Amino acid sequence: MYRNFKFDVIDSYEKSRLGILKTPHGSFRTPAFIFCGTKASVKGISPQQLLETGTQVLLANTYHLFSFPRSEYLKERGGLHKFMGWNGPMLTDSGGFQIFSLGHGSIADEVKGKRSGKTTLIKIDEDGAFFRSYWNGDLQLLTPEKSIDTQRNLGADLIVSFDECTPYHLNKKYTEQSMERSHRWEKRSLNEFIRCNDFSQALYGVVQGGIYEDLRKRSAVFVSENSFFATAIGGTLGASKQQMYEVVEMATTSLDTSRPIHLLGIGGIFDIFKGVALGIDTFDCVHPTRIARHGGALVKFQYRDSQNREHINLKRSEYATDDDPIESDCNCSTCRCFSRAYLHYLLKANEILALSAVTIHNIHFMNMLMEEIRKGILNKNLDHVRDKWC
Amino acid sequence: MYRNFKFDVIDSYEKSRLGILKTPHGSFRTPAFIFCGTKASVKGISPQQLLETGTQVLLANTYHLFSFPRSEYLKERGGLHKFMGWNGPMLTDSGGFQIFSLGHGSIADEVKGKRSGKTTLIKIDEDGAFFRSYWNGDLQLLTPEKSIDTQRNLGADLIVSFDECTPYHLNKKYTEQSMERSHRWEKRSLNEFIRCNDFSQALYGVVQGGIYEDLRKRSAVFVSENSFFATAIGGTLGASKQQMYEVVEMATTSLDTSRPIHLLGIGGIFDIFKGVALGIDTFDCVHPTRIARHGGALVKFQYRDSQNREHINLKRSEYATDDDPIESDCNCSTCRCFSRAYLHYLLKANEILALSAVTIHNIHFMNMLMEEIRKGILNKNLDHVRDKWC
Repeated sequence: MYRNFKFDVIDSYEKSRLGILKTPHGSFRTPAFIFCGTKASVKGISPQQLLETGTQVLLANTYHLFSFPRSEYLKERGGLHKFMGWNGPMLTDSGGFQIFSLGHGSIADEVKGKRSGKTTLIKIDEDGAFFRSYWNGDLQLLTPEKSIDTQRNLGADLIVSFDECTPYHLNKKYTEQSMERSHRWEKRSLNEFIRCNDFSQALYGVVQGGIYEDLRKRSAVFVSENSFFATAIGGTLGASKQQMYEVVEMATTSLDTSRPIHLLGIGGIFDIFKGVALGIDTFDCVHPTRIARHGGALVKFQYRDSQNREHINLKRSEYATDDDPIESDCNCSTCRCFSRAYLHYLLKANEILALSAVTIHNIHFMNMLMEEIRKGILNKNLDHVRDKWC
Repeated sequence: MYRNFKFDVIDSYEKSRLGILKTPHGSFRTPAFIFCGTKASVKGISPQQLLETGTQVLLANTYHLFSFPRSEYLKERGGLHKFMGWNGPMLTDSGGFQIFSLGHGSIADEVKGKRSGKTTLIKIDEDGAFFRSYWNGDLQLLTPEKSIDTQRNLGADLIVSFDECTPYHLNKKYTEQSMERSHRWEKRSLNEFIRCNDFSQALYGVVQGGIYEDLRKRSAVFVSENSFFATAIGGTLGASKQQMYEVVEMATTSLDTSRPIHLLGIGGIFDIFKGVALGIDTFDCVHPTRIARHGGALVKFQYRDSQNREHINLKRSEYATDDDPIESDCNCSTCRCFSRAYLHYLLKANEILALSAVTIHNIHFMNMLMEEIRKGILNKNLDHVRDKWC
C-alpha cells in the first residue's frame, strides 16, 4: 500500500529517534522541520534559496489552495511540486485545521485557548464541514472524501486524514463526540485513499482527544490499528507549555512507534527539544517564517536580548547601530552579507528585502537546529545541544 | 585626480563603443545598465541574486538616503557598499533629479512633459534647493556642496554634480537661465569634490539645456572643458521618443568622447539601442525593476503579446494556464523554475515571491541585453542584435 515510502529508525536515544523518511520525491532525515508554503509559496523565498538554506521538506495548506487557485487547476498544472518548482518531499494537511481554527478566529487564539468573535465556519455535521471561502466568501463543503481527492490533485507525497481540530474551550463530552466523529472521518479518509491509491502518496492518521488522557490514548490506539502510513498529533494541546508536553506524552504513549510521528503546528525551539524527547519525528509551524516578516530573527541562547523570547526583534532601536550580523556564528547568506543595522533599516524603510533576508536566516536556523538535534541523538548528548540552542 | 579610475574604449562600431570602466570596487564592461537600489536595496533582491543575474553596477539615490537614514548614519556604518553588502561598482546621483521631479509630481509626469499639482519643492535660489523631506516633512536644503559631501558619506565610486533637472514645460529663457545656474552649481560641485578628494570617487558633470540644440551644445562644451571624470546627460529629453533621440544626439555631439557618457533615466530596450548608437556608455532606469513588481516581465520580440510593449503583463488572465516560462530561451533562475501560470497565480494571490521572481528575470534580461549589445559592437552586427531584442 505504501510501497514507495519507507521510514527507518537508524538510531535512538531514550525516546528520541534518528530516522530517514523515504518519499517518491526523495528522502529526508528526521527529526525534521517542515516549512510552511501555505499558498504554494514560502513567502518571498525561491526553491533555490530553500535548498541553499538546507531545507528538506515543505508543507502547503489544503484549506487555502482549495479555494484559490483550486485543486483541479493545480492538477492541470501538473501538481504542487511542478507548479512551485519544488522537487523535494512535500506534505499537505487535510484542510480541517484551518476550517476549524480560522473559523473561530486565529489559530493561536483558538487552539491555544483564546476566543474571538470572528467565524467563517458555518456548520459541522456527520458529512463534513460547511464554511465560507476566505478567498471569495462562497459557501463550501469539505468532507473526508473531498479532502483526500483535493490532496490527490495537489499531489504532495504525504497527506493527512480529515478530522475536526478540537479547540480548547470545549468540555470533555464534546471533545469525545468530536473525536469519535473524527475517527469515522479518518476511516472514510482511509477508504477514499485506498480506493484511488496510485502509490504516489502516503496517508497520516490524526490523534485527537483534546487534553484528556483516556481520550488521547483511545485515539492513539484507533490510529495505530488502522493502516495509516504515519501518525499526526492534532487538536488542542492545552493552554500552557507544561500541559502541551503532557498532552503530547499522553498521545505518543500508545502509538505504533514503527511509524513516523508528526506534531502539528509546533515550532518553538524549546518545544521541539521537548517533542523530540517524546519521540516526535517531524514538526511544522508557520512561526519561524511568520515572525521573520515582522522582523523577528531566531537566535541561539547567547544572542538573545530577553530570556523570555527565542528571537530578537530587529525593529527595536538598539539594532539601528548594531553592525554585527544576526548571529556571528551563522553561515546563512543573510548573516554573511547583512548587519543587524541594515536589516533594522530595511524594516523601518519598508524595503521588502527585509522579509526575505530574515526569512532566510530563520529557515537556515531551523535547519541547523534540526541538524544538531540529529547529531545530538547520534552522539547521545541532546541535553548539551539543548543548552546551546535554548 | 582620478588615479583609481579609468575608462578604456576597447572597440567601436560607428559611434557605438565597447569599453571598460575601472573603479576602486572593480571594473565593468560598457555599454552597461545600472540598476536602481534607490534606498540602498534593489527591492526584494539580495546582492547574491544580483551577482547570479550578471549585475555589474548599482545606483542608489542621494535624495532618498539624505532624508533617511541620512548620510552621516551611512558613513558611520562604513558607507553604502558595506551597509548593503554590495562589493561591486556603485553610482549615486546628486539628489537634484528627485527634488525637482518628485517636487512637481512623478518623474514620468514631469520630466516627460505631464504636470501634476503635487509639490514638495519649496524654493530654488542661487544657493540651492529647499524642499520638504519625503520621509518626515522636514524642511531641507540641498546645495552643490551638501550634495557632494552627502555623496562622500555614501561612498559610491561614481558620483554626480548637483544640477537643476529642467522640466519640459518651461520656455527657452527659463531653460537657459536654469542651465547657467546648473553650470555654476556644477563648478561648485567640482570645487567641493577637489577640496576633499581622497581618490575613492570620480565625479560626473551633467549636460543640461532642455530640448534646445544651442543650449545642449553650450552645456556639452561646458562639461567637457571642466575636469569631470565622466559626463551624464540630464534634464528633459523632450515629450516624444523621436525628440529624445534628437536631444541625446544634440547633447553628445560636442562632448569629450574620451570620457564615459551616461544617459540618465532611460531604460527602454529600443531606447538603449538608440542610445548605444549615439555613443552612450551607461544607462540607468527604475523601469525594469519597477514594472517587475507590477507583474511586467521584459521579453524579446518573439515572446511579446503586443507590438507596443516591451514586456508582457503576467497579471493578464491568458497567463493563468500558460505553463511555459516567461522566455523559453532564458536561463535566469525564474525561467528555469517557474511557469507564467505560477507567476500569474503568485501575483493574484499577493504572494511576495512574485515580486522578486519577476525582478530577477528583468535584471537578468537587461544584463543579457547589454551583453549581446557588447558582442554586437565587437562583431559589428548591432542591427542584427536589435532585431532579436526589439
